[in-house]
Amino acid sequence: MKAPLIAPDLSREDLARPIKGFDQTGAEVEIRVVEERPLSIWLNSREIVTAMTIGDYPEYLALGFLRNQGMLPEGVEVTGVDYDDFSEAVVVRTREATDFEEKLKRRTRTSGCAMGTVFGDMMEGLEGLKMPPAELRTSWLYALSHQINRMPSLYLEAGAIHGTVLCQKDHPLVYMEDVGRHNAVDKVAGWMYREGVSGADKILYTTGRLTSEMVIKCAHMGIPVLASRSGFTAWGASLAQSLGMTLIGRLRGQRFVCLSGEERLIRDADLSSVSAEESRSRRKGAQDE
Amino acid sequence: MKAPLIAPDLSREDLARPIKGFDQTGAEVEIRVVEERPLSIWLNSREIVTAMTIGDYPEYLALGFLRNQGMLPEGVEVTGVDYDDFSEAVVVRTREATDFEEKLKRRTRTSGCAMGTVFGDMMEGLEGLKMPPAELRTSWLYALSHQINRMPSLYLEAGAIHGTVLCQKDHPLVYMEDVGRHNAVDKVAGWMYREGVSGADKILYTTGRLTSEMVIKCAHMGIPVLASRSGFTAWGASLAQSLGMTLIGRLRGQRFVCLSGEERLIRDADLSSVSAEESRSRRKGAQDE
Repeated sequence: MKAPLIAPDLSREDLARPIKGFDQTGAEVEIRVVEERPLSIWLNSREIVTAMTIGDYPEYLALGFLRNQGMLPEGVEVTGVDYDDFSEAVVVRTREATDFEEKLKRRTRTSGCAMGTVFGDMMEGLEGLKMPPAELRTSWLYALSHQINRMPSLYLEAGAIHGTVLCQKDHPLVYMEDVGRHNAVDKVAGWMYREGVSGADKILYTTGRLTSEMVIKCAHMGIPVLASRSGFTAWGASLAQSLGMTLIGRLRGQRFVCLSGEERLIRDADLSSVSAEESRSRRKGAQDE
Repeated sequence: MKAPLIAPDLSREDLARPIKGFDQTGAEVEIRVVEERPLSIWLNSREIVTAMTIGDYPEYLALGFLRNQGMLPEGVEVTGVDYDDFSEAVVVRTREATDFEEKLKRRTRTSGCAMGTVFGDMMEGLEGLKMPPAELRTSWLYALSHQINRMPSLYLEAGAIHGTVLCQKDHPLVYMEDVGRHNAVDKVAGWMYREGVSGADKILYTTGRLTSEMVIKCAHMGIPVLASRSGFTAWGASLAQSLGMTLIGRLRGQRFVCLSGEERLIRDADLSSVSAEESRSRRKGAQDE
């Protein structure tokens, strides 16, 4: 298994810490638990949002959040991204600050809490948008979930965290985790934006549910394939269909459901060889309740 | 088992709908999937937020959201709550509209997407706050999760949805579900606010993770006990300890972890009688992947 280019740094002491508790028998237990801390994201001189995050890759989170909000459109030059550990803030600086005031006004009216993001802005630029047609092989899907389920992660260490992985064919490129699944996606988006990586030949894998928000973020990232081990909402499926995005849900061991893009799905995997993985990967995941 | 006073109306056709897909064998499958639609919440003449919700109990969601945001403080008289199906909006009217503009200004700066809510306002009024000391019996915990896991729900029907249950001793009073776990909690808060029900002698059960947001909302609702079948974050546990809130995580079958309030926990349940439930309740939940 090739290691991803970037992933959570499990050697860091500040992403999770031991919490004392008592189990059902009254015995004292110590459990390693993920951290959660506020991060203020500034665009030039305006504070845009305070995100609750485990705290790694704050620059990518800020860039990806602003990018997925449509606040860093094409042509806007980012002149600096500065993270200050003490004030728990990231400042993203651009050469010209036009149009943001207007966006912020709209945002004030429609900041979508239940979406965990800004609804008004999120849909912007999606009207009539179509994803590049992308082939997806079931052998890639199974290889990816096999690798991702076994990859060293805060999920396996501490649980109660979501993971999002940028993949190419059967190779995980970028693995991000966060308490909020939208943060993990935004960190991937920030990495892509910073590195100038195109989404056209990529697959986005997430442990979280396929809500409209996830499909919309994936579309903003230009990624034509979105897969998850979790369930989905009706609107998430409808959006993927209208965007020409291939959507795979409930990907567990051998099982999955293709909700959009069946015609682009190539069923080249030998299912009998996959089923054996199921119980192993289940056990791996079983510690997260 | 006594039925709760209020729960999702499973006879409604508009909370979930069948979605066509293809499984791993290429066979066409039809899956009942929960809906997700925007709901604009207005406070008098100001649109406060657009929430993504399954769409039931919009009046409770609006009242509970505003209440948990500190935008409906004691003494503010609600003169009307009007839901308009066509425009997908709820307008909450109060006699005096003081102070909201100021709150909205703050909100604009700190609306915490990753928290799925407004961080700045959420912490307000929690400084030095202590929950009323409340006893919790393990027999109640086991009885509640036994009932809740088997209660007819959108979760059992369609999955990909969170549930929050307001309980008293071993009796589930109010069962709310939503795509966003914070919406389900806000609907419970709205019901309590509308019905004038105190949280002091209640237990809040949720299927979602115990993040700082959940603990903060529970504190705003005046509920001294919060329990979840899911995991928790370090800050969620710390907040509960400082608030004197009893916090129970990873409540599955016989197992649980008490993260705060061990001294108020009465271990009166016979564990050997509980373990038998585990596999049954696991199977019940197993259809949600």
